Amino acid sequence: MPARKTSSGRDTRLAKDLREAGLRISGKELRALMRGVVAAPVNRSRDAWMTLIAPAPTLAENPTLVAELRSLREEIAGDEAPKQPNQSDRRLAALRDILRRRRVDGFVVPRGDAHQGEFVAARSERLAWLTGFSGSAGTAVVLPDRAAIFVDGRYTLQAQGEVDSSLYSIHHLVDEPPSEWISDHLPAGARLGYDPWLHTSSQVSRLRAACEKAGGRLTPLSSNPVDAIWIARPSAPIAPVVPHGDKFAGENSAQKRREIADDLGSEKVDAVFLSSPDSIAWLLNIRGGDIPYTPVPLAFAILYADATVDLFIDERKITDETRTHLGNGVRIAEPVTLAAALDRLGSEKRCIRVDSEAAPHWASRRLRRSGARIAHGSDPCIRPKACKNDVELAGIRAAHRRDGVALARFLAWLAAVAEDGSVSEMSAAARLDALRGEDERYAGPSFETISAAGPNGAIVHYRTSPDTNSRLGAGDLFLIDSGAQYLDGTTDVTRTVAIGTPSREMQRRFTLVLKGHIALAVAVFPEGTSGSQLDAFARRALWAAGLDYDHGTGHGIGCYLGVHEGPQRISKLPSRVALEPGMVLSNEPGYYKEGAYGIRIENLLAVRAVDAPPGAEKSLLGFETLTLSPIDLPLVDPALLTGEEMAWLNTYHARVRAEIGPLLDPETRAWLERATRPVRD
Amino acid sequence: MPARKTSSGRDTRLAKDLREAGLRISGKELRALMRGVVAAPVNRSRDAWMTLIAPAPTLAENPTLVAELRSLREEIAGDEAPKQPNQSDRRLAALRDILRRRRVDGFVVPRGDAHQGEFVAARSERLAWLTGFSGSAGTAVVLPDRAAIFVDGRYTLQAQGEVDSSLYSIHHLVDEPPSEWISDHLPAGARLGYDPWLHTSSQVSRLRAACEKAGGRLTPLSSNPVDAIWIARPSAPIAPVVPHGDKFAGENSAQKRREIADDLGSEKVDAVFLSSPDSIAWLLNIRGGDIPYTPVPLAFAILYADATVDLFIDERKITDETRTHLGNGVRIAEPVTLAAALDRLGSEKRCIRVDSEAAPHWASRRLRRSGARIAHGSDPCIRPKACKNDVELAGIRAAHRRDGVALARFLAWLAAVAEDGSVSEMSAAARLDALRGEDERYAGPSFETISAAGPNGAIVHYRTSPDTNSRLGAGDLFLIDSGAQYLDGTTDVTRTVAIGTPSREMQRRFTLVLKGHIALAVAVFPEGTSGSQLDAFARRALWAAGLDYDHGTGHGIGCYLGVHEGPQRISKLPSRVALEPGMVLSNEPGYYKEGAYGIRIENLLAVRAVDAPPGAEKSLLGFETLTLSPIDLPLVDPALLTGEEMAWLNTYHARVRAEIGPLLDPETRAWLERATRPVRD
Repeated sequence: MPARKTSSGRDTRLAKDLREAGLRISGKELRALMRGVVAAPVNRSRDAWMTLIAPAPTLAENPTLVAELRSLREEIAGDEAPKQPNQSDRRLAALRDILRRRRVDGFVVPRGDAHQGEFVAARSERLAWLTGFSGSAGTAVVLPDRAAIFVDGRYTLQAQGEVDSSLYSIHHLVDEPPSEWISDHLPAGARLGYDPWLHTSSQVSRLRAACEKAGGRLTPLSSNPVDAIWIARPSAPIAPVVPHGDKFAGENSAQKRREIADDLGSEKVDAVFLSSPDSIAWLLNIRGGDIPYTPVPLAFAILYADATVDLFIDERKITDETRTHLGNGVRIAEPVTLAAALDRLGSEKRCIRVDSEAAPHWASRRLRRSGARIAHGSDPCIRPKACKNDVELAGIRAAHRRDGVALARFLAWLAAVAEDGSVSEMSAAARLDALRGEDERYAGPSFETISAAGPNGAIVHYRTSPDTNSRLGAGDLFLIDSGAQYLDGTTDVTRTVAIGTPSREMQRRFTLVLKGHIALAVAVFPEGTSGSQLDAFARRALWAAGLDYDHGTGHGIGCYLGVHEGPQRISKLPSRVALEPGMVLSNEPGYYKEGAYGIRIENLLAVRAVDAPPGAEKSLLGFETLTLSPIDLPLVDPALLTGEEMAWLNTYHARVRAEIGPLLDPETRAWLERATRPVRD
Repeated sequence: MPARKTSSGRDTRLAKDLREAGLRISGKELRALMRGVVAAPVNRSRDAWMTLIAPAPTLAENPTLVAELRSLREEIAGDEAPKQPNQSDRRLAALRDILRRRRVDGFVVPRGDAHQGEFVAARSERLAWLTGFSGSAGTAVVLPDRAAIFVDGRYTLQAQGEVDSSLYSIHHLVDEPPSEWISDHLPAGARLGYDPWLHTSSQVSRLRAACEKAGGRLTPLSSNPVDAIWIARPSAPIAPVVPHGDKFAGENSAQKRREIADDLGSEKVDAVFLSSPDSIAWLLNIRGGDIPYTPVPLAFAILYADATVDLFIDERKITDETRTHLGNGVRIAEPVTLAAALDRLGSEKRCIRVDSEAAPHWASRRLRRSGARIAHGSDPCIRPKACKNDVELAGIRAAHRRDGVALARFLAWLAAVAEDGSVSEMSAAARLDALRGEDERYAGPSFETISAAGPNGAIVHYRTSPDTNSRLGAGDLFLIDSGAQYLDGTTDVTRTVAIGTPSREMQRRFTLVLKGHIALAVAVFPEGTSGSQLDAFARRALWAAGLDYDHGTGHGIGCYLGVHEGPQRISKLPSRVALEPGMVLSNEPGYYKEGAYGIRIENLLAVRAVDAPPGAEKSLLGFETLTLSPIDLPLVDPALLTGEEMAWLNTYHARVRAEIGPLLDPETRAWLERATRPVRD
């Protein structure tokens, strides 16, 4: 295999160059590291990974070295991504074969990884590799004589296109959940295997109950059988971990750790096991790049009641700067040592808090078997992470102003050119990304942009692709839902604009959605109120017309972290989580007419205290709208708005004009003046 | 003991009289029966119990016999209710003593009985007997060196008055639940006893987890130690079980049983265990009188997939007419045979549905130990019972018209006399009950009337008593929350009226409550919407003023059944139960100013389909207001109402006038005309 040889030769040369630059890394080490680098998503600063090999000054002095590293990356990336035809049948047969040899009768393949986040590394895409289904949520269950895949409503069509239905029956994740299917189809006496790293304890309880109902048994497997048959599985991603400075975070890590540790101590808990990368990144004021869209490193951690942390992470991701930033209170350890650390806690009979809705069941099992006491409780970082401090809020506001500038330039361009048929969904999305990219603090999109023209807008989680890429045309509605990761904040905004003249129906329904958006934006409510209690405010106008939308009204959002974060949300799904000052949420009611068009108006909101009127007995909360971008006036029917609603719209537009206008070039500013003109009935 | 002798002599004479009337009952049997009769609440038809001894024609022919039975009842009632001074300390000591002898370290004393209803028979008032606390919800936990009682917010003050705090520490049931207290105070290695008849499986799970957290163990006791030390404990109540005719029920029992049995069969469940008297009364179309306010007999039942029922009930409650009404599909068995029936199901390896939120844990244990499979699932009567059929709805509407007549007469009388200081809370309540009593179908109040003047109105669950009984005076608000059981429907209504001239603040806050009441009354929402989603509509106007109320907005209500029934409710507490056509709920927002006054406006609503506007895509539901009684206009500030709200008020009052007016005497009708006059801004 000459290619290999050449590569080895290059590695040796590179290693030599590196040695000459004063760095010690063997060719073998370098190649292993590079396999991790190519397994991480490409970052906006494409060469940032090189700091894992050489300090920035050294790189700056060695353009040859930089070029060699770049070329090595490209070569390995080519090696790592061989194009393969659909092999679902062979893979399913191989999985059944290995299950037989391991003497289990079936296996559960969830989409999630051990961190239970929305986005996963390439090596964790087991469900996609096995079944072909590429959606962001789903589960397959494989039995000897049948197999099934479960996806939610937004993915039903996609699954039908991607999954071979002669191999897998396709089911609705909520209406026909895996547990029911298992109860019905698992033979009595059968053993259903699962990977205890990939399921939370709550999920395992449900699976176990389903197996028992069928007279079978749920069995943890010591290694994942999919991994055993997955040839050329990507490596674990390796992206640099960087400090998230106090000027963005507003509170240093030592303070955060001390506050949470004190709470643990007062509850007589010795430590908490953390498995959410968002929590760990927030707690330690670090960011990373191991997975798409959310700037976090994959890691586990244990926070002790003395406020120190064991951070289980591939040390190759940690630069010297980051090591200094973490300080003495954070001990860095290889992930492989996690088991021993949990065993030690057990042997010392410690009481460990574990979040049974978030942590891998593996951790609870390991702790319990080693003798630890488990205190079930939620991840203690979730709430303080959700309640942004003043520095974070200032950063988020600043990020929204700059995002507003990019949006204004985008919408002004769109208004000028869209009607001529030259703009496609993909070119529009690329243009917006490029405009955001002019900002120094832009780190990339916070999720895959939904750029949807005409009927595509009615597909709530539409993702454009070369196959579906439509051109915008007169009479269409164009819906664009996008967001950015800036070092000082995360954005998420949807605007729906009419290309040419909209129909009366489009106007009326857009205005009903707007009425809901405004009802939520102006809501005033006492402390202790949950988002579930407010959800219907955003739907009432649509309901009265016999219309609705089949998604939540608002999700929580992080600060240069996940675009979806808990615990807060605004949804008809029950929740007892009270909204608290500093929480950031989206306000995104919509309306979707299948085969015709989609409408969504999304701004981000920050929860804040509002002044109580005279005689008030309760402390009141309300919202500050963060997003600054015009709402498409040709779609607004002023006759359907109350005076209060009209006042909100005009005040909001005046604010957009005042805050964004001065930051714009004259041409865009002129467009903004027109786009935010006052509306009268 | 001469009294006993005399009684025995009388029993013998009575038995002889009965024999002469052609009836066979021994003196001993008669006395046992009578002890059950006096343990049941006094019914409006005071002599109804006599049908358990002799048929009505026989009684009609024997006035002497009737007189003798009456006198026997009075004598035994006197025997059974000896007045005792507070003996909490002795009783607690006796309980600890018997626990020691039984080798357990503690015991849990809940207020509920095996049926988990809101109201319990006198013999089940263990918590009150032991601790002195007479509220309708609470739990005590007794340990060797300490004891605690847990009551919710509405009972905190009452518990402080009733419970000896040197014996029991008093805690908030929600903020400091028993499970936490047990975790903190149960010594490691200790065994905490409980009566498996008095806790659901869900409750037992929580108690068990609390004990395990403390390193102790939860232990079921084979008999209740409180019963062992309770001298002169009342007998099990014996009240006649009467048929609830098809003209009220709208569907016969055989149909109901068949429909539910078919559902069980399709889920491969062989039978369902029923422990809720409301469900059993609904399923079998019977009513009873064993407990206060809710017209049900205490019983258990097993409904089989073949649509037959085993009804476990004291046969002495069943008259021949009721036996015929029940028919061949219902086998009557003594409650003592329940254990054997469950064991039989187990030995046949049957699959039995048990509601782990409602059924006594005893039943699940028994079934599991005997080999049955348990299918956890909710009581299948709950949903169809909640969705009233057309006949029931017609009955409920009719009951509300007659209730409206009684209310109009009451409110007209109050308007005439209240300002002169002659009316007290108790006399007002008695007057309303007497007015309702003129109706032939009135069977008694559906709960203890809340009649509250001035500051007492701010106590949400106020119960007037000779100690607190206030006179209504000028400047007061008077709040009266009451309800009736009619054979054709159950009512529950609250009106707040100004005595004399109300303050501006009273007016303003009453109007805010009214705005919330109207917002809910006019709500339109798609199928699938839960009451939790609508709750905030009733609060929004108050919230904007910094005000709120600390109770739910609406509870479900039965049809000549419980005044509180599930699964539907309108509350800020999360619920995923969709509102369905035919469900009846209360709409009762309020406002309470401590030490000053209380406001509540309560109407009952029926969920119904509403016509969808053109272009609607969803089937829409809304509410029909059932209650017909004027809202006190002197308390309404028209300037605070929108045009739509004003229109609702005037339309509602016009309807009250049209439906109730013709049924009134001229004087009351004249009052009604004034009380329902149109309001203009």
